[in-house]
Amino acid sequence: MILTLKSGSSKKEVDRVIKKIKKFGYRPHVSRGVDVTIIGMIGERAERYRDTFEAMESVDHISEIEKPYKLASREFKKENTIVNAAGIKIGGKTVVIMAGPCAIETREIALETARAVREAGAVIFRGGAFKPRSSPYTFQGLGEKGLRYLADVKKRTGLPTVSEAMTTSQVALVGKYCDIIQIGARNVQNYDLLKEAGKQRKPVLLKRGMATTIKELLLSAEYIMSQGNYNVILCERGIRTFEDATRFTLDLNAVPVLKKATHLPVVVDPSHGIGIREHVAAMAKASVAAGADGLILEVHPRPEEALSDGPQSLLPEQFAKLMQELKVLAGAVGRNI
Amino acid sequence: MILTLKSGSSKKEVDRVIKKIKKFGYRPHVSRGVDVTIIGMIGERAERYRDTFEAMESVDHISEIEKPYKLASREFKKENTIVNAAGIKIGGKTVVIMAGPCAIETREIALETARAVREAGAVIFRGGAFKPRSSPYTFQGLGEKGLRYLADVKKRTGLPTVSEAMTTSQVALVGKYCDIIQIGARNVQNYDLLKEAGKQRKPVLLKRGMATTIKELLLSAEYIMSQGNYNVILCERGIRTFEDATRFTLDLNAVPVLKKATHLPVVVDPSHGIGIREHVAAMAKASVAAGADGLILEVHPRPEEALSDGPQSLLPEQFAKLMQELKVLAGAVGRNI
Amino acid sequence: MILTLKSGSSKKEVDRVIKKIKKFGYRPHVSRGVDVTIIGMIGERAERYRDTFEAMESVDHISEIEKPYKLASREFKKENTIVNAAGIKIGGKTVVIMAGPCAIETREIALETARAVREAGAVIFRGGAFKPRSSPYTFQGLGEKGLRYLADVKKRTGLPTVSEAMTTSQVALVGKYCDIIQIGARNVQNYDLLKEAGKQRKPVLLKRGMATTIKELLLSAEYIMSQGNYNVILCERGIRTFEDATRFTLDLNAVPVLKKATHLPVVVDPSHGIGIREHVAAMAKASVAAGADGLILEVHPRPEEALSDGPQSLLPEQFAKLMQELKVLAGAVGRNI
Amino acid sequence: MILTLKSGSSKKEVDRVIKKIKKFGYRPHVSRGVDVTIIGMIGERAERYRDTFEAMESVDHISEIEKPYKLASREFKKENTIVNAAGIKIGGKTVVIMAGPCAIETREIALETARAVREAGAVIFRGGAFKPRSSPYTFQGLGEKGLRYLADVKKRTGLPTVSEAMTTSQVALVGKYCDIIQIGARNVQNYDLLKEAGKQRKPVLLKRGMATTIKELLLSAEYIMSQGNYNVILCERGIRTFEDATRFTLDLNAVPVLKKATHLPVVVDPSHGIGIREHVAAMAKASVAAGADGLILEVHPRPEEALSDGPQSLLPEQFAKLMQELKVLAGAVGRNI
Repeated sequence: MILTLKSGSSKKEVDRVIKKIKKFGYRPHVSRGVDVTIIGMIGERAERYRDTFEAMESVDHISEIEKPYKLASREFKKENTIVNAAGIKIGGKTVVIMAGPCAIETREIALETARAVREAGAVIFRGGAFKPRSSPYTFQGLGEKGLRYLADVKKRTGLPTVSEAMTTSQVALVGKYCDIIQIGARNVQNYDLLKEAGKQRKPVLLKRGMATTIKELLLSAEYIMSQGNYNVILCERGIRTFEDATRFTLDLNAVPVLKKATHLPVVVDPSHGIGIREHVAAMAKASVAAGADGLILEVHPRPEEALSDGPQSLLPEQFAKLMQELKVLAGAVGRNI
Repeated sequence: MILTLKSGSSKKEVDRVIKKIKKFGYRPHVSRGVDVTIIGMIGERAERYRDTFEAMESVDHISEIEKPYKLASREFKKENTIVNAAGIKIGGKTVVIMAGPCAIETREIALETARAVREAGAVIFRGGAFKPRSSPYTFQGLGEKGLRYLADVKKRTGLPTVSEAMTTSQVALVGKYCDIIQIGARNVQNYDLLKEAGKQRKPVLLKRGMATTIKELLLSAEYIMSQGNYNVILCERGIRTFEDATRFTLDLNAVPVLKKATHLPVVVDPSHGIGIREHVAAMAKASVAAGADGLILEVHPRPEEALSDGPQSLLPEQFAKLMQELKVLAGAVGRNI
Repeated sequence: MILTLKSGSSKKEVDRVIKKIKKFGYRPHVSRGVDVTIIGMIGERAERYRDTFEAMESVDHISEIEKPYKLASREFKKENTIVNAAGIKIGGKTVVIMAGPCAIETREIALETARAVREAGAVIFRGGAFKPRSSPYTFQGLGEKGLRYLADVKKRTGLPTVSEAMTTSQVALVGKYCDIIQIGARNVQNYDLLKEAGKQRKPVLLKRGMATTIKELLLSAEYIMSQGNYNVILCERGIRTFEDATRFTLDLNAVPVLKKATHLPVVVDPSHGIGIREHVAAMAKASVAAGADGLILEVHPRPEEALSDGPQSLLPEQFAKLMQELKVLAGAVGRNI
Repeated sequence: MILTLKSGSSKKEVDRVIKKIKKFGYRPHVSRGVDVTIIGMIGERAERYRDTFEAMESVDHISEIEKPYKLASREFKKENTIVNAAGIKIGGKTVVIMAGPCAIETREIALETARAVREAGAVIFRGGAFKPRSSPYTFQGLGEKGLRYLADVKKRTGLPTVSEAMTTSQVALVGKYCDIIQIGARNVQNYDLLKEAGKQRKPVLLKRGMATTIKELLLSAEYIMSQGNYNVILCERGIRTFEDATRFTLDLNAVPVLKKATHLPVVVDPSHGIGIREHVAAMAKASVAAGADGLILEVHPRPEEALSDGPQSLLPEQFAKLMQELKVLAGAVGRNI
């Protein structure tokens, strides 16, 4: 990192900073301008000491030049990571489509939806058993019963499944029944949960939080990876901005930026990202064109009976039509579905 | 609009609201619940009186149900507006590509760039003669001399041109030399400028501001149209959010939302929207897949010599490669380039 | 809530909505305008069905008129809740000052800081034993050892203590050693954690998340209260915006808005809210003037040695000076310290 | 500024950057780390060349260490600027209160309001003659007639006046009738307007835009000052964020940050900043406690008849009560009113 000292800092103050840099085992690179002195502190994990230097009165500000994440970075691993979820490869040439209802409500609806989305070309089935809801008075999910339905869906349709774990104890539980463990947007900085997901080996689908920067998302991935689990799939799902015509603002800029910064696969959730059923297809197509390695989409046969997120769920026939369009589009950008 | 009265409002207070609604010539629709009374005030341009009712102590809040813009709305005109800019049709099946340097710097660079982008398939040449710059100490544009270079480029290459007007007096000036008058993001709520652009008949490219909602963008278009000029092209170019890995957050959600709400053509500026040269192509493709009617792209033969926005300008060879990809992509979404 | 149907909805579609409202046991209030039909669905917890109606094709949008939180609302309880934390009353006339280091690092620094802040007038000691850090490679807190130091500080200084719990299992642990359990900004929508905090009886200090709306903060409080624990203290600590000159944007608007909407005490954390040591005092004063019931401030005797948040920690002498100023200020707004 | 080169840059690439720095007349300060090379380019207005270097492929990113504004900075002028508006001093020990209706509607209401606010202690009268309104169908102000009413108010009450100019031609017009020319939030980056305001000598009240950073606000002030007019008053009035419980998010952090960065006076507009009448007083007090040099407040004798911004206008008796409270508060923070 680079420390810029306050203009007019005395030689004594400059020396104090230099001494501290040396104390931590780094070599200071000092450049004295007419007004301003800048000091480079360059080397492995210098950023750990950022707070220390920022707290010094003579330091005006600090610029980071090294990335605070390592395992998740392209520098650490040049080639794309391909995550294998029960045989489905995420991060390769094929754009992976995950689809299903927001929440698992009944065994019948789950199965009906799974068959419809498999028919249309989806390769992974999604559905929530544990649901993070902003109100305590709304449907909170079926819990383990929902997970059993998911396992049943897999048995009958062959589709691997993804479902969310909200607590450390749910990680093993979701891992027992499902093929991918989802960490939701609200838990992107729930560090104990991230560590728990890192201690087991099932792939983790990590959703960006509504106010999480791209850098912080990669740091959250680093939490998982630092425990030994490198099977992390990143997911852009919309950030919170001033715009209120849509549920969130889908930040597709994040796709090329992430693909450059990290070797991990990047998928997009256009259902949450725009939150309006009739516009989900446009954003699904935009996501693939931007370079996404996969999509996660909400599909429900009767959205007005859905216990959660009905307004953004596609009907099976809408989903089938979208899949046709996506197949053509994927071909046009050198991918396939 | 719908007025929700404060819980516990007295009959007298309710009557006072009703009386005022009648005074303005509307018929009140009253629904009395156990705790809450709601009153509908429905009809042509009821929203004009919003402030009046919001200022009443007994009114808790107001929900708008009619759109505050009329001429720009799909309700007003069902079929797409196709804007004709010197023979180039914007808003039809063909995705229109506008390209050129951020600022017009010299006659030679302008001409060199115009020839390169025309060769690659661009149909409109862009370049700024009046430049809004956040610092007074940076290059402010060539002014009318730059406009003359643009006219010269058109004469030599046949490409229609688009350039920005920043003041009311520049509107006629830009209109004299160019085919489309751009209103920039910083001026999206400069209402006198909008009105001036509405008083002449050249097409207007209206850029969304960095904190402008979709509704406000349509209201700004309404300002232009209310003066009689219906040739308005809307442009999404990125909004300001907390994310700092990119220059702005390109809000592609706005594309399908706008296409639904308005009959006006919608184009996207991915150069400003992400602000990083190597990622512009991904966002250009995403824009077309999302349904954009056109793109406006920055291209410069020697970005490091550019006097403005070099970091986001494509090299001519990058632009040519992108155009090849966009042609294939446009076909895949039922458009052409 | 109020349902606005799409313009041009058929009688059949309107009837379908009405039938569904009746099915859920509510009485529909129908107002037919020339173009638009609006239907009120008013009554206890109608909002539970919002998704269902939003998912219906004929529904254009829905306006909420009842608050989705009940126990936290002023309507539920008119008079201010005064939370008693080991004898310290929060929510009354006295503005409560909580101070201490960001993280508990050593027994000595904790004790030294506690004595200094008590001397200056603080009545509660703060310090983190479990630290949520965005990087896995930075100091993560001392864990239970830190809690033991906190208990020791209380024994020696008499100051009640507040510390953060990040997981459900830490709730009981923090409750064992400390007097107030803090739920941090990153966990504001960690619903299992909220429920766990609601199942015990120690006061809970609930920090607003960096992208949490005021309504969502109250819903998170509702999660705790719905489990039976009404001792909730809300804390504004800055939200994430585009402004990067400060660490967060302290949203003091939230203070009067919350004081109106809820009976719960509202405190402010200006240290995180601005993140720059020399400006913390100004924002502490602004918080009290805005009506805050308390402040939580970071103080460290040697900020440059702090393992976390040094740049925003006040020196003990700065804190003492601020306390003098706050006492005068509190008097000027009808409070005391 | 400091250039960080991409990791793995070749010696040739490094030399190319160095050569360019020398070409611009600066001395490069080179620090070579194991992976990364950083180069300081330090000196007067080096930032002008930022784009040039950012556009170079080998440059990873650039950190600014000098401020891009000069005349507005504390470095340029250490002591506070005190702006004299027809005898009223803004920026000194006295907190200056400006009050009046949002828009000038009739001579009678203007005069009635002016007398009421003067009686309560306001020293400057505010009122808009040219109104920037987001819809073309709402009241747009009385224009010059409104300015004549303002002049009349001054004649009868002795109160100096402030009113907004929206176009370059309105600058002289407002200056003819009023004592302070306001540049509104929507025009904060209308550079021709800023320059015009800089060419005359009346004080300018410059409002921060809803998406303007603190740095950009100072650059906009620099535009005015660069034309020779140093009488600039900065005004924080709320920024746009995701929070929708209030009209804007009043960013009081900006007050201490601006007071440190610039010598110019800083005032706050709590009426727009929160947008809810009953909460304006709390935010007015918070503004003074944060260090504001003045307040600008909306007052209207009959808000429900106001043609603009009624919901946030104080009643005269509310204003009078607030003034009493502010006087006590100002004393408590070492100021007076």
